[in-house]
Amino acid sequence: MALTCGLDLGGTKLLGVVVDPSDPSGGPLVEDRLPTPAGTEAVLAALAALIRRLDGRARADHGRAVAAAGVGLPGLVDRTGTLRYGPNLPGVVDAPVARLLAERTGLPVAADNDATCAAWGEHERGAARGYDHSLTVTLGTGIGAGITAKGQVLRGAHGFAGEPGHMVVVPDGILCPCGRRGCWERYASGSGLGRLAREAAHAGQACRVVELAGGDAEDVRGEHVTLAAAEGDTEALDVLRRFGRWVALGLANLVNVLDSEAIVIGGGLAEAGELVLAPTRAAFPEMVLAGPHRPPVAILPAALGERAGAIGAALLAAERLPPR
Amino acid sequence: MALTCGLDLGGTKLLGVVVDPSDPSGGPLVEDRLPTPAGTEAVLAALAALIRRLDGRARADHGRAVAAAGVGLPGLVDRTGTLRYGPNLPGVVDAPVARLLAERTGLPVAADNDATCAAWGEHERGAARGYDHSLTVTLGTGIGAGITAKGQVLRGAHGFAGEPGHMVVVPDGILCPCGRRGCWERYASGSGLGRLAREAAHAGQACRVVELAGGDAEDVRGEHVTLAAAEGDTEALDVLRRFGRWVALGLANLVNVLDSEAIVIGGGLAEAGELVLAPTRAAFPEMVLAGPHRPPVAILPAALGERAGAIGAALLAAERLPPR
Repeated sequence: MALTCGLDLGGTKLLGVVVDPSDPSGGPLVEDRLPTPAGTEAVLAALAALIRRLDGRARADHGRAVAAAGVGLPGLVDRTGTLRYGPNLPGVVDAPVARLLAERTGLPVAADNDATCAAWGEHERGAARGYDHSLTVTLGTGIGAGITAKGQVLRGAHGFAGEPGHMVVVPDGILCPCGRRGCWERYASGSGLGRLAREAAHAGQACRVVELAGGDAEDVRGEHVTLAAAEGDTEALDVLRRFGRWVALGLANLVNVLDSEAIVIGGGLAEAGELVLAPTRAAFPEMVLAGPHRPPVAILPAALGERAGAIGAALLAAERLPPR
Repeated sequence: MALTCGLDLGGTKLLGVVVDPSDPSGGPLVEDRLPTPAGTEAVLAALAALIRRLDGRARADHGRAVAAAGVGLPGLVDRTGTLRYGPNLPGVVDAPVARLLAERTGLPVAADNDATCAAWGEHERGAARGYDHSLTVTLGTGIGAGITAKGQVLRGAHGFAGEPGHMVVVPDGILCPCGRRGCWERYASGSGLGRLAREAAHAGQACRVVELAGGDAEDVRGEHVTLAAAEGDTEALDVLRRFGRWVALGLANLVNVLDSEAIVIGGGLAEAGELVLAPTRAAFPEMVLAGPHRPPVAILPAALGERAGAIGAALLAAERLPPR
């Protein structure tokens, strides 16, 4: 089978890989990246340039061409591959990315939500392998998610499924950049962890965390908490215990709706590993409906790291290849 | 094709219908009911007796036998047709209902969650017809739900999908019989409407509602609110406006996750029609992520009323028929 490439468009960088979709144990054959430029035209040019570079390297190093491309975009991507809502890429909204890239590169191009791509990557090549009903949740500045059901991507009616970061879990809660209040991602993302720690600091706790932030409680971020916790600081571990309850609350809401058998945790916070996963796992069973009456849900660290989205995009692109 | 029967086991009554699964426009050919008895053995005997009665009437009135049976059960039903968790049917929990009924009746028997059956009924014969990605939510004493994705029932890994009533939407909120606090069904069910109205009454509002309840604010129930609102009482309409925001909050959470194109509202509260639907529709667009950037979601009244679950169970049973 032909090779495909996948690109993951982030706020600061554009990451691309080439994979062999017919090799279920294979990792990326080629990897490359570019900085994310500003403006629709510059973004499209960068995407097309990276596709050409990946293709060139695949031909040079592996003697095989790239036959289709997939792109993960941060926001709501409709089934035609158009970004309909993307607060982090304002200029690109409403551009038919998949169609324009297909015209520029001459390849079939698929575009999907970046977290949907990451979920498909983890399902096909990572931590969710073997779980037909899985959920991949990326905890970063915000929360992204992708869902598989019956071993397939669940995209919903328009391609917009999998935005649990904007489940309202606290009516009249903290204001979210999306315009609503009390969205789950205000509490269970890296930003949420930082806020919990600042609250602890203002209450005279989390001294070591404040020290690591340079001495000012207002400068505390999520990474200062995980750093202090990794040293064994009990106040930082206590903040993470409370944070784990917020993560578990949303995961339980999702499992009540979707009955997923495995949840993969990715994103920046996943790099803290068990420091985040252990308190989440501890809080989850009592938060899900009828916890003692259902099989346990596996809560797993992501396996593909920052490459999950690009790998998933490449594998979704394989579905656009003409049948052999 | 053969006829099938479907049974919907409620807290007080057991409703059964016979349908012709091969006739997409056909309604129930036979309908019958029994009171729900207490205890596992009595419930199983009643289910078997009603299946036999439905079969007898189908033979007598239509000259055709019932070839498979479906049963909707109130609670978490696993993929073997065993009720794993059912607070309203304590004795029946862990009984392999589908297998035991198959042994007693000699028919293939499918058992599913009652709201999943209702969702399938509405999808195949009711208000969700033509919507591949739909959600049927029953607002009664609690909240039940069933999901379709890609035109099929979404059951999840174990058959437990579709329990949004127990999404936590208010951390440390009102205690729920499930043991947690702040579940959506504490706010957006008939019980939630009653509570909102009692709060209004204690604040000196909702006078007509209290009058209809007999004069004591503590006796106010959801139906007194819809009754007063139907008379045009502005205080009751105001309670319903606030109630619609609670309903919309949970529906928006669900659409953020599932990207459903249509939501069917059933259950006791749906009988109030536009009094409940209109405020829900009014609140929904600003609660869903990127409301202005996505196609509108249809919020529709259920079409099959109390028969939705039995009809859906009968249609799910058709999947158990041997291929012709």
